[in-house]
Amino acid sequence: MPHLTNIKAPLRGIVPPMVTPLNSDGSLDTDSVKKLIEHLVSGGVHGIFILGTTGEFSGLSYQVRRELITQTCEQVGGRVPVLVGVTDVSIEESIALAEFSAEAGAYAVVVAPPFYMNIDQQELTHYYLQLANAISLPMFLYNMPSHTKLTIEVGTAVRLSTHERIIGLKDSSAHAVYFQSLCHAFRNHPDFVLMVGPEEMMAETVLMGSHGGVCGGANLFPELYVALYEAAANRDFEKIKVYQEFVMEISQNIYQVGAYKSSYMKGLKTALSFAGLCQAQFAPPLYPFSEQEVEELRSRVEKITSVLDLKEV
Amino acid sequence: MPHLTNIKAPLRGIVPPMVTPLNSDGSLDTDSVKKLIEHLVSGGVHGIFILGTTGEFSGLSYQVRRELITQTCEQVGGRVPVLVGVTDVSIEESIALAEFSAEAGAYAVVVAPPFYMNIDQQELTHYYLQLANAISLPMFLYNMPSHTKLTIEVGTAVRLSTHERIIGLKDSSAHAVYFQSLCHAFRNHPDFVLMVGPEEMMAETVLMGSHGGVCGGANLFPELYVALYEAAANRDFEKIKVYQEFVMEISQNIYQVGAYKSSYMKGLKTALSFAGLCQAQFAPPLYPFSEQEVEELRSRVEKITSVLDLKEV
Amino acid sequence: MPHLTNIKAPLRGIVPPMVTPLNSDGSLDTDSVKKLIEHLVSGGVHGIFILGTTGEFSGLSYQVRRELITQTCEQVGGRVPVLVGVTDVSIEESIALAEFSAEAGAYAVVVAPPFYMNIDQQELTHYYLQLANAISLPMFLYNMPSHTKLTIEVGTAVRLSTHERIIGLKDSSAHAVYFQSLCHAFRNHPDFVLMVGPEEMMAETVLMGSHGGVCGGANLFPELYVALYEAAANRDFEKIKVYQEFVMEISQNIYQVGAYKSSYMKGLKTALSFAGLCQAQFAPPLYPFSEQEVEELRSRVEKITSVLDLKEV
Amino acid sequence: MPHLTNIKAPLRGIVPPMVTPLNSDGSLDTDSVKKLIEHLVSGGVHGIFILGTTGEFSGLSYQVRRELITQTCEQVGGRVPVLVGVTDVSIEESIALAEFSAEAGAYAVVVAPPFYMNIDQQELTHYYLQLANAISLPMFLYNMPSHTKLTIEVGTAVRLSTHERIIGLKDSSAHAVYFQSLCHAFRNHPDFVLMVGPEEMMAETVLMGSHGGVCGGANLFPELYVALYEAAANRDFEKIKVYQEFVMEISQNIYQVGAYKSSYMKGLKTALSFAGLCQAQFAPPLYPFSEQEVEELRSRVEKITSVLDLKEV
Repeated sequence: MPHLTNIKAPLRGIVPPMVTPLNSDGSLDTDSVKKLIEHLVSGGVHGIFILGTTGEFSGLSYQVRRELITQTCEQVGGRVPVLVGVTDVSIEESIALAEFSAEAGAYAVVVAPPFYMNIDQQELTHYYLQLANAISLPMFLYNMPSHTKLTIEVGTAVRLSTHERIIGLKDSSAHAVYFQSLCHAFRNHPDFVLMVGPEEMMAETVLMGSHGGVCGGANLFPELYVALYEAAANRDFEKIKVYQEFVMEISQNIYQVGAYKSSYMKGLKTALSFAGLCQAQFAPPLYPFSEQEVEELRSRVEKITSVLDLKEV
Repeated sequence: MPHLTNIKAPLRGIVPPMVTPLNSDGSLDTDSVKKLIEHLVSGGVHGIFILGTTGEFSGLSYQVRRELITQTCEQVGGRVPVLVGVTDVSIEESIALAEFSAEAGAYAVVVAPPFYMNIDQQELTHYYLQLANAISLPMFLYNMPSHTKLTIEVGTAVRLSTHERIIGLKDSSAHAVYFQSLCHAFRNHPDFVLMVGPEEMMAETVLMGSHGGVCGGANLFPELYVALYEAAANRDFEKIKVYQEFVMEISQNIYQVGAYKSSYMKGLKTALSFAGLCQAQFAPPLYPFSEQEVEELRSRVEKITSVLDLKEV
Repeated sequence: MPHLTNIKAPLRGIVPPMVTPLNSDGSLDTDSVKKLIEHLVSGGVHGIFILGTTGEFSGLSYQVRRELITQTCEQVGGRVPVLVGVTDVSIEESIALAEFSAEAGAYAVVVAPPFYMNIDQQELTHYYLQLANAISLPMFLYNMPSHTKLTIEVGTAVRLSTHERIIGLKDSSAHAVYFQSLCHAFRNHPDFVLMVGPEEMMAETVLMGSHGGVCGGANLFPELYVALYEAAANRDFEKIKVYQEFVMEISQNIYQVGAYKSSYMKGLKTALSFAGLCQAQFAPPLYPFSEQEVEELRSRVEKITSVLDLKEV
Repeated sequence: MPHLTNIKAPLRGIVPPMVTPLNSDGSLDTDSVKKLIEHLVSGGVHGIFILGTTGEFSGLSYQVRRELITQTCEQVGGRVPVLVGVTDVSIEESIALAEFSAEAGAYAVVVAPPFYMNIDQQELTHYYLQLANAISLPMFLYNMPSHTKLTIEVGTAVRLSTHERIIGLKDSSAHAVYFQSLCHAFRNHPDFVLMVGPEEMMAETVLMGSHGGVCGGANLFPELYVALYEAAANRDFEKIKVYQEFVMEISQNIYQVGAYKSSYMKGLKTALSFAGLCQAQFAPPLYPFSEQEVEELRSRVEKITSVLDLKEV
């Protein structure tokens, strides 16, 4: 574990779910991985989360996942913590990837529920404990009901948090009552890290006391999301208003070209390709925008960047 | 319209969804209506919303609904605006109730989508416009997908807001990204009132600029919710922390006795009966707690009220 | 009860969910009611079900519902049993309509779960028993989860069937395992009537021993659905193949113009208007097809009727 | 491909989704695999489908999947066709497993949609074509919306069926209208194989003309399901009634111990362990019944087997 970050727990701030740069043949675009990581680190992010939903983990071969883990840990070199998604339907494959991540120097793993079989909270609890017992890295729970068909209930999270290696939860449900219930349940355990996925709600949850956000848009504009996080942490409402408006413009425009269920992924990765940070190549079942959609996106991105002065941020 | 309030638009603050006090034979408990209204008004609420979901509108006969509208408008006597839920599956019945409300002196009506037929946004838009054209009071849209199977999409709300009588939206989806998208869409129309239903997320949405909350718990503790609203409006984070914790304790305890889907309604109304503000009588399909559940609730309520010093609030 | 049918229990066969003919001002089109009833009765149907989902019950005022009950019972005059949908969210309104139906001479009422509040099986059971105890007509349960958000579980149906007035269940879930589970649960109670709503599955369920179908398309082509029912009841597979193909053509074409969630209702009622059996007028929130959609439907209907020789049926 | 079956297309009959016998350490229980295959083949099944949902494919390591493919193809030795589930979220892993299956002598692969990312029909079509173009075996589509969150729409299936290697569809939706719509769409293409998953609806769909069923209970009682299939294919209603009742008893009893979402899997595999056909060992996230549940199941199984005379079948 040569690059292990010396983390002052708990993690706080902006931890982008990094997209996975790919070549047209599905192999890892290692040049872009390097550029993207430098873009993120120089943008001030507080951690990098690879192989999440935005990282298209599910569509990647295990070979590509391993290459990305190795390259990311090396490239980051301990400057920020690296979190690795090891969500899988097979616990053995999750364990193998978690141990590979530990060897590579990752800070923690992030695990959504197994997402094929329909199970109950008791089975889910059993599963997470079995996994936590079998690995050596700290683990974040990852609540993602739109993709896994299952909510990690608050009581389940509380029970799991007593395991020494389960140190936080990332919630992508967008359900504000659920998240406030988590915050309330963990109000006396400030070291248990609670972060939200949807960037549109990051500011308000930080105002209410949460630890930060796993914001997809931070792949594109890391400074913006870091600035919004800091404004929220500092309760600077003037800045919150300005940055939140940019975040919402990104959400309403860049993520909503076409009527695809995958418009967010297509918009984000294609916008990154405009900035030279990766190619607009996707892992199946996703595929590139049409030319017309690309041009529509380009004009939307240009409109936003023309008014978003990142230096000012 | 003898009691019409002179409202300085837009409405802001805490507008409790008033429970409907009933006798055991299903008739209106008019003594309790009087007591409950005085409890709310003296508690400082900014409006009263009758015949919402918490008001069990759907289970009441039209006769009882009309009696409640009349009594509420008279009892309130213009001290705060009265909002009346006229949601129905038949547009003719909605119109009739809206006109009755106008006669009685109500401030506005609140309308969720027709909730039996499965329809599209275009049909929904058409429906709301037809209704708005047929009535004389201002109208709030009411987004309640868990009960109506249908979300009022942001674009639909924007289109509808151009109608002179559609003046706001109450969102009970608990979906933070949806609500932030609404706030963004209406950022240049500050008179369009945006309020949330779930009290657990009221503070954070007011911090982000929304107008207030339709908080069920305010039936019981109006001062608490008013205080939390004001703390959020004034960005007083010390007070937010204290009051939000009470609100969460109420949410986690009073609303969660038994494993009923209706635990919220049963808990709230039964707790109100402890305070002598109504009887623990429900409109079918709801029915009272078992004795054991009542005692469990009683001990939870006592625990909360023993530490909640309302005078201090 | 002047027209009470002398029913040999249990009901079997085709019981069309009659559409409600309306004038453009929302009033009942009594001429069409008369024509439509004669069309159905002369087509050989085994009963008529008014004020179901296809009858747009939810969008009608109570005044129109009462007029339809009265006229239907009078017009039918005991030739076939009349079933009346009295589904409502208010038990008092359901009871009132059920008693009105009894006075008018209806055979039975049909009741889907109250469809606004989210409730459990225990609350649902309690509700149905309370309703059954308060009325004088026999009652059919009506399982319609796509509209009511709630399945009447098999165990609930079994418990309710012990009430003397609960005599059958209409299932519109389209869930074949659920329906077979019902058939199995009631295998020793052949008098408990089990019918399916979706006409596409009527034949196979009759082959497996169920009592018949509540087929919307029978409004248009009653002879066809009666013939398919009889073919299934007689296990005449050559005829089943021919008639099932017509039923599927109707399903795939007449019910699927436009991408509306309400395409079935719009297609059925508009096709009936071509045949002079009602006007293409709907209760809100539904509204008529565009002219282009009407022409598309017309060409589809003509294509089907050109090959569907009803005399041959 | 040493054992390639000489199949007379299309496949018809009972193709059990074979459970995967496991040891307590998660490795393949090869003795039980052998016994179970002989049990199935001697029971008269028309094919064997490994690595489906009932085969717990998602919880198995790729190593175990490969071992099972190899052993099954060798043990079956061409006596019946072997179908292999290669459903995955990564197309590269699906392709690798499909090619491994081809080498091992499998007859065809079976593929459900990628089940993590939320996608549209167009993306799904693109995905299936990309996969079909990359493999050498025939492919069955596998509709399983409860697990994949996505229905393969009828139009999508029709489009995909023009690919030379896409030869059928297994539907586990239990949605009778959907399945009849498939039957209608393919009425002039009798070689496109349409089978249902839920055994409770197998008989009725065969009566209506489909090709057979992928019945989980056939792991336990292959003769029973083969007999029911043949009774349906021969339209022998007396036998259908007898065998269908057994199938429903199995469904209502063996699959419903406990209130687990996985009660079917637990019940089936544990019942098989009583018969010495595998151990009651599961791939995570599933785990064994409690002792009490095992005894409850045992008494239910004994009750059924005491009246189910398999020789008579």
